Amino acid sequence: MDAVSQYTTAKHPEHRWDFLPVVAETFDGSLNDIHGRHVHYDDVAAALDSAKDGPVEEGNVGGGTGMVCFGFKCGIGTSSRQLAERDGGYKIGVLVQANFGSREQLTVNGVPVGLEIPDRIPAAGSEPPPKADAAKVFEKEGSIIIVLATDAPLSSRQLERVAQRAALGMARTGGTSGNSSGDIFIAFSTANVIPLRGSDKELSIRLLTTERVEPIFRAAVEATEEAILNALTMGKTMEGVNGHVAYQLPYDRLATIMAKYGRRLAPALH
Amino acid sequence: MDAVSQYTTAKHPEHRWDFLPVVAETFDGSLNDIHGRHVHYDDVAAALDSAKDGPVEEGNVGGGTGMVCFGFKCGIGTSSRQLAERDGGYKIGVLVQANFGSREQLTVNGVPVGLEIPDRIPAAGSEPPPKADAAKVFEKEGSIIIVLATDAPLSSRQLERVAQRAALGMARTGGTSGNSSGDIFIAFSTANVIPLRGSDKELSIRLLTTERVEPIFRAAVEATEEAILNALTMGKTMEGVNGHVAYQLPYDRLATIMAKYGRRLAPALH
Amino acid sequence: MDAVSQYTTAKHPEHRWDFLPVVAETFDGSLNDIHGRHVHYDDVAAALDSAKDGPVEEGNVGGGTGMVCFGFKCGIGTSSRQLAERDGGYKIGVLVQANFGSREQLTVNGVPVGLEIPDRIPAAGSEPPPKADAAKVFEKEGSIIIVLATDAPLSSRQLERVAQRAALGMARTGGTSGNSSGDIFIAFSTANVIPLRGSDKELSIRLLTTERVEPIFRAAVEATEEAILNALTMGKTMEGVNGHVAYQLPYDRLATIMAKYGRRLAPALH
Amino acid sequence: MDAVSQYTTAKHPEHRWDFLPVVAETFDGSLNDIHGRHVHYDDVAAALDSAKDGPVEEGNVGGGTGMVCFGFKCGIGTSSRQLAERDGGYKIGVLVQANFGSREQLTVNGVPVGLEIPDRIPAAGSEPPPKADAAKVFEKEGSIIIVLATDAPLSSRQLERVAQRAALGMARTGGTSGNSSGDIFIAFSTANVIPLRGSDKELSIRLLTTERVEPIFRAAVEATEEAILNALTMGKTMEGVNGHVAYQLPYDRLATIMAKYGRRLAPALH
Repeated sequence: MDAVSQYTTAKHPEHRWDFLPVVAETFDGSLNDIHGRHVHYDDVAAALDSAKDGPVEEGNVGGGTGMVCFGFKCGIGTSSRQLAERDGGYKIGVLVQANFGSREQLTVNGVPVGLEIPDRIPAAGSEPPPKADAAKVFEKEGSIIIVLATDAPLSSRQLERVAQRAALGMARTGGTSGNSSGDIFIAFSTANVIPLRGSDKELSIRLLTTERVEPIFRAAVEATEEAILNALTMGKTMEGVNGHVAYQLPYDRLATIMAKYGRRLAPALH
Repeated sequence: MDAVSQYTTAKHPEHRWDFLPVVAETFDGSLNDIHGRHVHYDDVAAALDSAKDGPVEEGNVGGGTGMVCFGFKCGIGTSSRQLAERDGGYKIGVLVQANFGSREQLTVNGVPVGLEIPDRIPAAGSEPPPKADAAKVFEKEGSIIIVLATDAPLSSRQLERVAQRAALGMARTGGTSGNSSGDIFIAFSTANVIPLRGSDKELSIRLLTTERVEPIFRAAVEATEEAILNALTMGKTMEGVNGHVAYQLPYDRLATIMAKYGRRLAPALH
Repeated sequence: MDAVSQYTTAKHPEHRWDFLPVVAETFDGSLNDIHGRHVHYDDVAAALDSAKDGPVEEGNVGGGTGMVCFGFKCGIGTSSRQLAERDGGYKIGVLVQANFGSREQLTVNGVPVGLEIPDRIPAAGSEPPPKADAAKVFEKEGSIIIVLATDAPLSSRQLERVAQRAALGMARTGGTSGNSSGDIFIAFSTANVIPLRGSDKELSIRLLTTERVEPIFRAAVEATEEAILNALTMGKTMEGVNGHVAYQLPYDRLATIMAKYGRRLAPALH
Repeated sequence: MDAVSQYTTAKHPEHRWDFLPVVAETFDGSLNDIHGRHVHYDDVAAALDSAKDGPVEEGNVGGGTGMVCFGFKCGIGTSSRQLAERDGGYKIGVLVQANFGSREQLTVNGVPVGLEIPDRIPAAGSEPPPKADAAKVFEKEGSIIIVLATDAPLSSRQLERVAQRAALGMARTGGTSGNSSGDIFIAFSTANVIPLRGSDKELSIRLLTTERVEPIFRAAVEATEEAILNALTMGKTMEGVNGHVAYQLPYDRLATIMAKYGRRLAPALH
C-alpha cells in the first residue's frame, strides 16, 4: 500500500491528493519467505507500469506465485461472460487470486475431484516450516480475492449485490470460507465516468433497472467458478521457501476422473 | 403492515404483486392501551386516503398521539431546508415521530432545558400501570422514527449517508440512543422516477457527484434537530390509558430559560 | 406477524411487553390465492400450539405448501450434523423453506439434474394466472428461508458468520440468488440462556474461540445443501389456485441420472 | 502500517504470524508536508516503545501534530468516565485525533462559540499551498479518529453499538460528518482475555446483559464530546509547511463567550 501510494503520487502529481489505493492480499507464507519483505517499491512500480490490455496471465504469476488451493499449487485465474443481446450484451470479467480450500472439498463442475486425488499433498521441506508444522500450514483453509469488472451500468448497490454472488461461484468449487478466510470481493463498473471533481451540478448516469441485473448475477457466479478452476489448473508445481513444495493438479488424472463421473474435459492447453 | 398490504392491494389491484409495505413504529404503551389493538383496517385506510400535500400537522396526531420525549408529551414534528442556489437549490424535508430521551438530557439549541425543568414528569394513574411501575415506563429511553425526503438526485448510497446524519441531528437534542431504542432512519429522493418494470434496457438517471452532498448532510442534521424540537413543542398534555398523564413542555418557561442562556425564542404559535 | 404478536401476548401475558416476533416468508402466489388472505389467527395459533420435539415434517407442509424450487414442487426440508468429539461434538440443525431456482440450475450432489429433466415444468391452469403469464411466474427466481440452530456456544458475531455460510450451501444446489430473492438466513444458539431482564450485573457465558468455529461452518454448508435437497425430494405434485400445477421431482429418474453421473442414491423413503 | 507490521514481527517473533496491525489516519496535509513521507520505521518504533501507562499527552502531539478542527489548531484529546457502582462501576476511556468541522459549526457545551469567533482563521503562507488555495484546504470538513476502551465485559456487538454512540458525542460539538470524512470509531474491551490459540474447547466469558449497556452508551457520548473539546483547547498555534498557520482557540475569549451564554468555564490549565 505504501508503494502504491508513492507510485501514484510520483506518476500523477496533479492528483496526489486524490488517490486512495486499494490493495488486497492473501497469505503466501507457506511457500514465500513472507517476513523477508522482498517486494519493494521497484517491484510494485514495475507491475503497475507493465499493466496492459489483452490476455491475462494465469497461474504462478504476480500475487498468484505463492498461492495454494485445495492442497494444489494454484495462482491467478480469470474468466468472463458476455450476456445475450436481449439482456443488454454486457460483459463481466472476473480475476481471482485463489488460496483456499482443503483437498477433500475440491469440486470441479460438480465432480468430487479432491476425494479422488488424496495424494500429492504439499510437502514440508527439511528446514523448519514457517508455522508449527507444515502439514498444518498447508491444511489451513485460506482465502481468496475476487475482482469483478463489468461494462453494465450498475449502481454501487447493484455492484455490491454482484460482489455477493461471487461467494456463490466460490462455493461451487467446494470452499466453505473458513474461519481465517479474509475473502475479499470487489466489483466495479466501467459504464459511467464519474469526474473526480464535479464542476457541473448534476451528472447524467446510465443505470439498469433492478430486474435487469439477474443475468449479471448468473454470469458473475459462473465466471467466478471458472476463474477459480483456471487458477487451479494453470498452477505449476513449485518449491518455495525452506524446501516446501506444492504440487500442481495432474491434468491427465483430472480428465480421467471427469470421465468417470460422466463429464468431458477440454484437452489441456498447457 | 397487514392493513397497509390489504389497502394497497384493494386500491391498486394491477400492482398487487408489486407492493412491499414499509411500516415503522415507536412504542406508545405508556399512554396507549397498546395490547387492546385499537387500530383497524378502516383507520389505516382513512389515514392513507387522507394523505395530501400542504402543511403537516404536528404534535399529538397519528402515530404521534402517544409519544413522549424527554419526559414531556411529544409527537410528530417536521422541518425542512432549501439549499443555496450555488449548492443546487435542492430541498430536504424531515418528519419525525419522537419518543426518546430522559428529562435531564433535553437540550434545546444547546441550552440544558431538561436540567432547568426537573418537574412536570409524567404521572402514573390510579390503575395498575402497563409495566411494573409508571416511573420506570416513562423513564425508559425510547426511540425515534426519522424520515428524510429530498428532491436532490442522490444514489441509494448517498441517501444512506444522509440517513446516517439524521442521528447527528438527534444527538443535538441530547439523545444518546438508548439500549431499547429501535431508531429508524429512512431517506428517499424524488428526483428520479424508476419504473416498476423496466421496458427499456437502460435508464438515464440524474446524480450528484459525491462532493456535492455535503450541504445536504448539513441540512439533514439541522432539519432533524428542528423537527424534533417541533415535535416536542407541539405536543399537548394528554391523559392516556389508566390515568397516566404526560405533560407538555411549558412554552413560557422554555422562553425564560432560553433567555437565561442568552438565546431568544420565537413567540409561541400555539 | 400480527397473529404471532397477538398469540404471544395472550399466551404469556406477563411477558407481553417483551416479545418481538420474528416472521419470515417466501412468495407462494403461483399456487396459493395469496391475496385471499386465508391464514387467520386460528391457523397461526394452531401451528404454534402444535410445535413439538421430534422428527420434522418435510415437503408440502405449513409454509412449504406452496413452494416451488427449480421448477419442481418443493417445500420444507431439514437436515443436521453432529461434529466429531474432537471438535466439541456440537450439533447444528437446518430448516429450509425453499422457493428458488430455475430448472436448468438444479444440481444434486454436483450432478446437473436440471439439465437432464427439461420436462415436467409447472403448468398454468385455464384460469387467468396470477401474473401476466404462468410460465413467467414459475420461471422467476424466488427466494429461500434458512434457519440454523446449534448447541455450540457461539457469539452473535460467530452466528452471523454461520448464517453467511448458509448461502454457500444453497449455491451448491445451483441457485444464484436472483434479483427478486429476499433470501433470509437466521442462526441462533441454545448454548447460553440470557435472562430477559438481568438481575445480576454480569453473566458468565460459554464461548468458542474463533478458530473452533471452522467445523461448524462446514457443517452449516453441508446441512443447508442437504436440507434443500430434502425439501425438493419430499415435495408432492400439487394443483394450486386457478388450476396451476407444480410437479414433484420424479425420484426414479433422479436415481437413473445420479447413476449416469457415477453417483448412487439411497432408495426412496416415500 | 508497513512499519507497525515490521515492528511487531521483530519484537515478538513467536507471534509473527498472528499480528494484523490496526492503523488509522486523518489528513494533515494543510500543515504537514505529507507527500514528503517523513515518518519512518524508527519513528514508529520509538512511538510504540515509549507507550506507557499514566496521563495522556494532548494537543499537538503524535498524530495530533497537524490536526485542525473547526478552523482552530487541534490535536489529540482524551477523556473518561466511571459508571456509578449500581451500574457496575466500569470505566470507559476515549482518545480522539480530531481534524474536522468548519468554524461556524463549533459548539462548546451547547454554546455557539464558532459563530462568536469568526476571526483567527487559518492563514495560507507565501508558498503555493498544498491544494488550489489555502482557504479551501482549511475550510474542508475533515475527519476524526475516536478510540473507546472499557473494562466493562461487552460483546463485539455491544462494542459496535458503543462505537456508534461516539458519533453522537461528536455531533454535540457541531460536526456533521462531511462528505470527505473518513470518521473512524474503534471500541474494545479489556474485560475478557481471549487466547490467541485456544487449547480448551470452551471459554468462560463475562458479559453484560443488553440492558446494562445503557449507562455505557451515555458515558461514551459524554466522554467523546469532552475528549474533542480537550483536543481543541489543548492545541497550540502552529506554523506548518509552506508558512501555513493554524491558530489555537483563545482560551480567554472562550471563557468570556461561555459566560455570555450563562456557562462557567474552568480556569485554563495551560
